[in-house]
Formats: sequence, C-alpha cells, structure tokens
Amino acid sequence: MSDMNDLEKKIGKIPVIFRELAEKNPELHDKILALDNLIWDDGALSRQIKKVIAISIAAALRDEHAVQAQIAGAKKLGVKKEEIEEGLRVAFLLSGMPAYAYGKAKLEETYK
Amino acid sequence: MSDMNDLEKKIGKIPVIFRELAEKNPELHDKILALDNLIWDDGALSRQIKKVIAISIAAALRDEHAVQAQIAGAKKLGVKKEEIEEGLRVAFLLSGMPAYAYGKAKLEETYK
Amino acid sequence: MSDMNDLEKKIGKIPVIFRELAEKNPELHDKILALDNLIWDDGALSRQIKKVIAISIAAALRDEHAVQAQIAGAKKLGVKKEEIEEGLRVAFLLSGMPAYAYGKAKLEETYK
Amino acid sequence: MSDMNDLEKKIGKIPVIFRELAEKNPELHDKILALDNLIWDDGALSRQIKKVIAISIAAALRDEHAVQAQIAGAKKLGVKKEEIEEGLRVAFLLSGMPAYAYGKAKLEETYK
Amino acid sequence: MSDMNDLEKKIGKIPVIFRELAEKNPELHDKILALDNLIWDDGALSRQIKKVIAISIAAALRDEHAVQAQIAGAKKLGVKKEEIEEGLRVAFLLSGMPAYAYGKAKLEETYK
Amino acid sequence: MSDMNDLEKKIGKIPVIFRELAEKNPELHDKILALDNLIWDDGALSRQIKKVIAISIAAALRDEHAVQAQIAGAKKLGVKKEEIEEGLRVAFLLSGMPAYAYGKAKLEETYK
Repeated sequence: MSDMNDLEKKIGKIPVIFRELAEKNPELHDKILALDNLIWDDGALSRQIKKVIAISIAAALRDEHAVQAQIAGAKKLGVKKEEIEEGLRVAFLLSGMPAYAYGKAKLEETYK
Repeated sequence: MSDMNDLEKKIGKIPVIFRELAEKNPELHDKILALDNLIWDDGALSRQIKKVIAISIAAALRDEHAVQAQIAGAKKLGVKKEEIEEGLRVAFLLSGMPAYAYGKAKLEETYK
Repeated sequence: MSDMNDLEKKIGKIPVIFRELAEKNPELHDKILALDNLIWDDGALSRQIKKVIAISIAAALRDEHAVQAQIAGAKKLGVKKEEIEEGLRVAFLLSGMPAYAYGKAKLEETYK
Repeated sequence: MSDMNDLEKKIGKIPVIFRELAEKNPELHDKILALDNLIWDDGALSRQIKKVIAISIAAALRDEHAVQAQIAGAKKLGVKKEEIEEGLRVAFLLSGMPAYAYGKAKLEETYK
Repeated sequence: MSDMNDLEKKIGKIPVIFRELAEKNPELHDKILALDNLIWDDGALSRQIKKVIAISIAAALRDEHAVQAQIAGAKKLGVKKEEIEEGLRVAFLLSGMPAYAYGKAKLEETYK
Repeated sequence: MSDMNDLEKKIGKIPVIFRELAEKNPELHDKILALDNLIWDDGALSRQIKKVIAISIAAALRDEHAVQAQIAGAKKLGVKKEEIEEGLRVAFLLSGMPAYAYGKAKLEETYK
C-alpha cells in the first residue's frame, strides 16, 4: 500500500474509484497506480502545475467529475486559486466559455 | 498593431488566421486580440506554463491544428521539451493514449 | 454596466458566472463582454437563430449547463420551440441520438 | 433513387460515403436516407439555416471532414458566407478559438 | 407499435425520450425506430456485444445519461458485468481514466 | 522485450510511438506496456472484440489516427469486416453520422 500513500502525496486526494479498484480489480489497480505514480511525480513540472493542467483539461472536456476531483486534490497540494483561474482562461480560449464557467464555478465552491 | 506585437511576444507565433482576421473582420479581431493579450500575459502562471497547458488541452481534444500551433509557439518562447512531454502525460491520464501519442509525435517533429 | 444590459437584450439571460466575473475578475469580464456583445448582435443571422445554433452546439458537445443556459435565454428572446427542436435534429445527425435526447428533454422542461 | 435526388436538393451535395452505402449496405442506406430527408427538409428552419447549424456543430467538434462536407453543400444551396462566419463565431464562444479557426479556414477556401 | 416491442427486445429498455417522440414527433420517431431496429439487431455481432460497445463509447464521450441508459439496457439483456468492465478498460486506454471511472461507478450501481 | 512481443500478439500491430517510447522514455513505456498487456488480454471479451470496441470509440471521438491504427491491428488479428462495420453503426447512433463515415472510409481502405 505504500504506493498508494505515495500517490496520495502526489495528487492530494485519492478518488473513491481507486480504493474500490484495489479490492475488486487488484491487477488493473496496480498497473494504473504504477502509471499514476510516474505521471504525477515532480519532474520538469511540479505536481502542483500538473494539477493545474489536469483541471484545465478536465474543464475543456466538460468532465465535471474530473474537474471536481482534480480541484479537490489541488487544494490539498496547496495550489493557489489564481493559478487554477489562469489555467481555466486557457481552457476558455481553446475550448469555449462553458469550459471556463464550469471550472470557475467549482473553483469558487472548493476554495471559498 | 502594437497589441499584436504584444501578443506575438506572449504566444511565440501568431497563427495565420489571426492576421487574416485583422483585414477581413477587424472588429472581431480586436476583441479577440484584447482577450488573448489578457489571457496569455504572465500572471500567477508564466506564459511558458500557459503554453504547456494549451498544448495539453489541445492534445486532449484531438485538435491537431491547435497542438501544432501551440507547440510551434512554445518553442519560440523557450518552453523545454520535457515540460511539454510531462504535460502530455497528464493528457494521457485524462484523455487517453492517443492524446499523448498525438502530442508526442508533433513534439518530436518540432523539437528535433 | 450598459454593455451588460445590451448583452441581456441579446442573449435573453445573463448567466450567474458572468455577474460574478464583473466583481471578481473585472478585466476578464470586460474583454469577454465586448466579445459577447459582438458575437450575439443581429447581423447576417438574427440573435434568435444564433441561440438555436448555440443550443445545437451545446447539445452536440453534451454540455448540459450550456444547453440549459442557452435554452433559457432562447425562450426569453422568443425563439420558437419548433426551431430549437429542428436544430437538435441536426445535432442528432452530426453528434448522435444522445445529443438530441439531451436537448429535447431540456426543451420540454423549459417550454412546457 | 428519387429519395436521393430529394436529399441532394436539400443538402447541396451527397457525400461519397452515402453513394457507397447505397451499394454495399442498402438497408442501412435506406434508413439513413429516410432520416436525412426528414431532418434536412424545410420546416420551422430553412435548409440553409440548418446547414449553418451543421457547420457550426462540426467546427465545435473539430470534425474537419464534416466541416468541409457541410460547407461544400452550403455553397451549393446558396448560403451566404457571412451567415456561416457568424455561426462560427457562436462556435468560438461555445467551443473555443480553434473551432472558429478551423471553420474560417475552410470557409475562405470554399467561398473564395 | 410492434416495431417498438421489437426494439425493446433488442436494447433491453426503451428510453423515456423515445416514448415521448412517438407522441410528439411521430414522423421522426418512426425514422429513428427503423434505424435503431436495424442497428441493434443481432448480426455479425450479438446485441449484447453491441451494448458493451455502446457503453464504452458513451463512457469515452463522458455522456453520463447514455452510460446509464445503456447499462440499464445491458443488464436486462443479460450482459455480464465482466464484459462491460473490460469494455470500459478499452475506453480508459482510448479516452482516459475518467471515462473508466464514470462507467465503473455506474456499473457497480446497476449491477450490485 | 517479451512483453512487447506479447502485446503485438494482442493488438496486431504496435504503433510507432510505442517503439519510440521504449528508447526515449523507457520508464513510461514500461508502465504503459504493463497496462496495455492487461487491457488487451483475452478475458470476458476476446481481443478481437476489444479491437472492435476500440475502433468504435476512436470513430466516436473523431480520432483519425486511432481509427487507422486500431483498424490496421484488427485486420492482423483476423477481425471480420462485418464486425467492425456493425460496431461503427453503434458509433453512428451514439456519436453521429460523421463517426460512421470516418470509420467506414478507413475500413474500406484497409480491408479492400
């Protein structure tokens, strides 16, 4: 389970689905966990910046669950609200006003 | 035109469509330019990081033109290849292997 | 604020996010407002037809918030139910049955 | 074949895929043709306006083939360039700058 | 109405929208019904496998309503949970972790 | 390299990007390979059916590269043309006519 603790440090908050996978589909869980740990690790980009990217992508895709999950994790990792807001502006340019509006609403809700 | 020079500094490279707009739809051009200048400006995030976000979103959306345009601009702004590659990994997680493959192929092509 | 009143006439109903932006991100708000006013203005297409287009796009993108917001605005602008229904049929052809089903359900709800 | 001639009048130009379907998958072809004829018929919206909607949706979805096919048909039906351009502005607002850029580039190409 | 009974056998459960169409837009309803009956029929692929495909597509598109409707139908047709779960893994690879998470959550809910 | 040979058996054809990853980003490559091997393995669904699902998803997403790559792999695995065609019909229903047209055109090209 140390891998999952590692991941928690990296992404701020483990989604429920992940904990369920550990029980019900352990083999898939292990593969995803290994991939996740690699992707979220600090590297050329910090894990905080990666969170901003993830939120911006999720907003661009109109993926409400992912927006919510990623913003919750970002908050725990100490990502600043202004950073997320500026990432969402890029999502606006590339994917339209509703992408921004989605993300902004969730951001205000989580960071109030 | 100073606004457009400003924008060039911020995004690395002005897409052709933008130059055409200046002639054919000047009013729309001005509004978009004003918005663009605001969005791409250094703020809580640097313009370089915003480029990484834009590339990651474009890859997630399977938007090949946008991927290409954003990577070209990123290179001019001095964004490091590793930063883009790590942004694309986040796109993989949120939008699948082809999102990564798209972006990676364009990245290798532009940064070789 | 006269620009926002203008916009209200054009789109029927200003989304909450927009009013919040005016307070919290006034510079971004002004740029978007200027762009919005230009886009929604009567021109080669009436603002009513533009609403039908916006609803059809939002349905095609499975963007429920945008579908709802655009249909609410359309009703205030006097767009006919049949016009929206026919726009949604085009969304069906280009983006599948669920695009139509989404929009149709919201349409019945708002126009009952 | 009279149904297909009907459809040609309505959509301006029958895509190649459609003619192939008639030979290779005649049953599917007939069902789609019947649906197509119903959807594209003049009704609360003219077939010209429906074309503008189809182009705007295709641009919003980054569907280049559909953008191209729909613009080609629109031209044959006498849709005005300005109408399409204004539809694409709505696509910009709802789906981002690349949606507009896509469509605009194809529009200039087809209507020059 | 025998066509609709046919369809019910094929897809497990007719969505509400469909029953409403029969009343309010009978002509559109008939065309879609004819197409639906053709598409869902057993052929080179069984209707059960087609359901797994439909669920995987809906998850890939982040189309929650379609995911839910298709899983409900799949259960009535006797599709096995493991088949759907494996289809969702393919959705993960092609459209990201949230596509899998969406579908998996609905699957657990419906098949518990 | 035996894992990659395994994968080749499962998916028919390894995309170029994958071979490049092995050299340039070996750690990421290994994680994805492990995940891929798990996902594509015969289980409740055969690897052939998983290919049909992958093609249908890729078509629904308008992801041309993925459509092409998956169809090429499917052919090597002995997937029948009719099976893919029927999967694409489901993509039509859930994601519109262009999704079908995309996939159908590539299918005819690869299977002629």
